[in-house]
Amino acid sequence: MVDRLLRDGHTVIGIDNFSTGVESFVTAALRSERFTLVRDDLLDPAVALAAAKDVDAIFHFAANADVRHGTEHPLRDLEQNVLVTMNVLEAARRNGVPRLAFSSTGSVYGESPVIPTPENAPFPVQTSLYGASKVAAEGFIQAYAEGFGIRCFIFRFVSLLGERYTHGHVVDFYAQLVEHPEHLHVLGDGRQRKSYLYIADCIDAVLTAIEHDGPVVQIYNLGTDAYCEVNDSIGWICAAMNVQPEITYAGGSRGWIGDNPFIFLDCSAIRGLGWRPTLTIREAVERTVAYLSAPR
Amino acid sequence: MVDRLLRDGHTVIGIDNFSTGVESFVTAALRSERFTLVRDDLLDPAVALAAAKDVDAIFHFAANADVRHGTEHPLRDLEQNVLVTMNVLEAARRNGVPRLAFSSTGSVYGESPVIPTPENAPFPVQTSLYGASKVAAEGFIQAYAEGFGIRCFIFRFVSLLGERYTHGHVVDFYAQLVEHPEHLHVLGDGRQRKSYLYIADCIDAVLTAIEHDGPVVQIYNLGTDAYCEVNDSIGWICAAMNVQPEITYAGGSRGWIGDNPFIFLDCSAIRGLGWRPTLTIREAVERTVAYLSAPR
Repeated sequence: MVDRLLRDGHTVIGIDNFSTGVESFVTAALRSERFTLVRDDLLDPAVALAAAKDVDAIFHFAANADVRHGTEHPLRDLEQNVLVTMNVLEAARRNGVPRLAFSSTGSVYGESPVIPTPENAPFPVQTSLYGASKVAAEGFIQAYAEGFGIRCFIFRFVSLLGERYTHGHVVDFYAQLVEHPEHLHVLGDGRQRKSYLYIADCIDAVLTAIEHDGPVVQIYNLGTDAYCEVNDSIGWICAAMNVQPEITYAGGSRGWIGDNPFIFLDCSAIRGLGWRPTLTIREAVERTVAYLSAPR
Repeated sequence: MVDRLLRDGHTVIGIDNFSTGVESFVTAALRSERFTLVRDDLLDPAVALAAAKDVDAIFHFAANADVRHGTEHPLRDLEQNVLVTMNVLEAARRNGVPRLAFSSTGSVYGESPVIPTPENAPFPVQTSLYGASKVAAEGFIQAYAEGFGIRCFIFRFVSLLGERYTHGHVVDFYAQLVEHPEHLHVLGDGRQRKSYLYIADCIDAVLTAIEHDGPVVQIYNLGTDAYCEVNDSIGWICAAMNVQPEITYAGGSRGWIGDNPFIFLDCSAIRGLGWRPTLTIREAVERTVAYLSAPR
């Protein structure tokens, strides 16, 4: 997003505590005099407050983004996803920032009875601390939008793929197959159905949406109009890596506590703004393997 | 609830920081040797942790319960309703408490397109910090239920009326009419439609639900199968107080930022367990006026 905004001519302030962010990803951006990097933690309210002076829009994408390990660190999702969001909201309010884009997640739908799942699906029951923390952040953002007039754009992403991908099933499987090409171990039964989106398509969608006039709260699902089984993705990864491993399964329909065996979002709202993804899920998986394989 | 549990033979630990709680309300309870009062703040994780040792159920009703003043103190709802809930959840998890009842609110539905509003209404957009904080707490409770097996009972209340009522429209109007019986000033246009429930009926409903087997997450709307206009309630209050004030209106369909002009919940789920309210809204308003008028 930083690279794209700089390319589009904007001046950008990036804030990262680099707990999961990777410094080399901003090497190119740092060559631009329109980019400022703040190496600090948004858990400190003063950090957001200082950075949000005189800005036109905030892209609040800082988060603990791993849905899988919530129960091992029950307070991490609260701190990184809710408290940080409150600090960002207060910074926006006190600085009069007019627009805020937020990276939510399809996990907020829990195990939806409606698939493909639209933005106004039945009031969900949360099944993971990650989903709970994102629905909490969404609620506070919406209340700030209503109470203080900050226009907010909430994006419920499927899992993202592509360049600079650092966690998720493709990197897990890739790492296993580099270490032992003859064997792959899979959490769950491999039949989990998930939807994915290529990172550049996601960025296009966000930038399309925030230029759109409309109500003070706008919520968009972001995904492709398709899903795949984990086993499909395994096939594409193995073909791209040219390996034929023996595959073992941990078993069960869920890969971990709070795993949702079927995620597929209805993305007609964002498509209604004219946006279309350019890559299929298979192409995005292959692009991710190519990225992981490239010498760095 | 404390008095009722003691009457039913239970041993009860009450925790209150008395920020809005009233000490005289537990005078009777304190005469029981089965009641322990902890005067402390649940924002301190150690308080909940110590109190939750060897308990069979937690009734987590501690909250900032006033929806109206959220925008004046944007962080209070987060602290009192979300952080306190996390402390209670961690106390339940670490002490192996099997059941948790939680006081949520009909405000979590925002301005629902479906009225009467069922528990699985369309995914709401939050319009108040209070609603946002309660939906956040609900999500974390649901995730703890799913992740750690704590059975949770989430109750989405309409506004409560009756004995020990300390805030809301009846006490506001009562106080005005005691001070100047000839004049009553009303926020909004008086046409807001709201539903109310008598406190003893609410307690009955909670105790009915938590004895019910079923899924690890159970969510119940609690209200009467009726609503009234603010103007109806004004008529009942004035009749009960025997006053005929001139009424002025601040105007607008909302009494305050985040006010919902029409709250009416579908309570068929809790009715399906056999529970019925004993008082109508009018009777509950009259009971509240009688309580406020009684010498203390």
